[in-house]
Amino acid sequence: MKEPTLTPESGFLRFRMELSYDGTNFSGWAKQRDQRTVQGEIESALESVTRNLLVLQVAGRTDAGVHASHQVAHFDLPERDQNGNEWDLKDIAYRLNRMLTEEIRIQAISLAPKFFHARFSALSRSYIYKIADGGQLLAPLLRYDIATWYRPLDVPTMNQAVTPLLGEHDFAAFCKARDTGTTIRTLKEFAFERGADNFIIAKVTSDAFCHSMVRSLVGAAVCVGEGRFPPDWMKAVLDGRERIGESLVFPSRGLTLTNVAYPKDHDLEARLGITVRRRDEDLEENE
Amino acid sequence: MKEPTLTPESGFLRFRMELSYDGTNFSGWAKQRDQRTVQGEIESALESVTRNLLVLQVAGRTDAGVHASHQVAHFDLPERDQNGNEWDLKDIAYRLNRMLTEEIRIQAISLAPKFFHARFSALSRSYIYKIADGGQLLAPLLRYDIATWYRPLDVPTMNQAVTPLLGEHDFAAFCKARDTGTTIRTLKEFAFERGADNFIIAKVTSDAFCHSMVRSLVGAAVCVGEGRFPPDWMKAVLDGRERIGESLVFPSRGLTLTNVAYPKDHDLEARLGITVRRRDEDLEENE
Repeated sequence: MKEPTLTPESGFLRFRMELSYDGTNFSGWAKQRDQRTVQGEIESALESVTRNLLVLQVAGRTDAGVHASHQVAHFDLPERDQNGNEWDLKDIAYRLNRMLTEEIRIQAISLAPKFFHARFSALSRSYIYKIADGGQLLAPLLRYDIATWYRPLDVPTMNQAVTPLLGEHDFAAFCKARDTGTTIRTLKEFAFERGADNFIIAKVTSDAFCHSMVRSLVGAAVCVGEGRFPPDWMKAVLDGRERIGESLVFPSRGLTLTNVAYPKDHDLEARLGITVRRRDEDLEENE
Repeated sequence: MKEPTLTPESGFLRFRMELSYDGTNFSGWAKQRDQRTVQGEIESALESVTRNLLVLQVAGRTDAGVHASHQVAHFDLPERDQNGNEWDLKDIAYRLNRMLTEEIRIQAISLAPKFFHARFSALSRSYIYKIADGGQLLAPLLRYDIATWYRPLDVPTMNQAVTPLLGEHDFAAFCKARDTGTTIRTLKEFAFERGADNFIIAKVTSDAFCHSMVRSLVGAAVCVGEGRFPPDWMKAVLDGRERIGESLVFPSRGLTLTNVAYPKDHDLEARLGITVRRRDEDLEENE
């Protein structure tokens, strides 16, 4: 088995995979012994289809129960298949979708541009978080990706609370405690809106996220939206750098990874150089 | 326990319940020994909340795996609760929703008008059936109520095939064989349309349905839509009254009960009179 490398080993090609999944019944993305994970299911199917051992690298290592409508991963394979032919990528995607349950759909597989790395090339990740507030009834088939909240929430107040968090900050207060790694992130987008269906949707984009960061941010914003704390409380919590209570963290089910942004192809080499210099900081990107 | 009666026994009140459910993990509506059913779950919760034994009567006895976005049922209770107070219907609905899983949501409970019977008063039932055709990928969270079909389907041709079936006919060819009961039904609406999301939706309304009738009709229309049979094949099958093959019947998961129509309150007594005269015909309404 090839250990993951920044660029493909000599004689190997790198392939980019776009996919979606319903995270409900997975113990998250990352492979774990004796757990059903998205990575585990796909690697196993991909190894069977390509007859090669491989390791998937992913843009957003989603947590248990978190969904993805657009996730990006990569894997490396020898230049030719075992019959000496070029890889038929459409056929590989088709066969993966036949082998996998409908919980995971492979949207496309393509030859990756030079210096592409699903995780380290990514400029940002975008998530949405959906909430049905005010005790409104949730249609049964919508329960998988919308969290419920008993009290009504005031969206303008929530936006007032979260806007000061935009930009580069130390998000330690909204990150699950870890021994290592920086918690400095650049929050590029964080806003709530109420849709025509009366659900609230939070849109959150950051260069990277630390563990359970979106769910902590949403939980804190809900405290403000229901009037428990004033809007300036969130910025004070951020500045205090003391981890908010676990009870405030909102459930996984409302969270969906919706997009990963990459540089243009000709900027990939420079981007990978930056990432390599930052690797010692152990920048995490899981949510 | 009160055996179900056409109108409430003396000293009893009748309550109308509106509800929705995700049928995926139920063995259908109707209570069965050792099976998890929608009726079984609700009756058990309702008995616990009201401390009365009761039997739910329903408008559409949906089959295993079939969903409902708007189902109607009724049940009878003594005029007062065990403390001699009037029933608090809002509280009963609230407590039911707390006890039941999110697979079932009780939308409302109200005092039924005189001569109301959820099953026998109903004038018609409406269903939708959703299909993702042409091998298009289905977003994982949409898999619960949309069926997939490999070949592309031509919607105008399907509508050409099904329009001659509107009106009163013997639908034996599209009904699961039973020993008893008429298979004459009045089909009021049956049309396919392709939505903005590229899925096909069939809308079907009838006074009543026999067993797996919508799924048989949809399966036959798909045969026409993919070009396997000409459009006039469906009317010929109807006229032949010979049951179509089980392999053509489409899966439950694409099917959702969306509406039940009742007469205006002042017409309910007359309606029940008609139904009683027709009861010996064993008119079924399950799907």
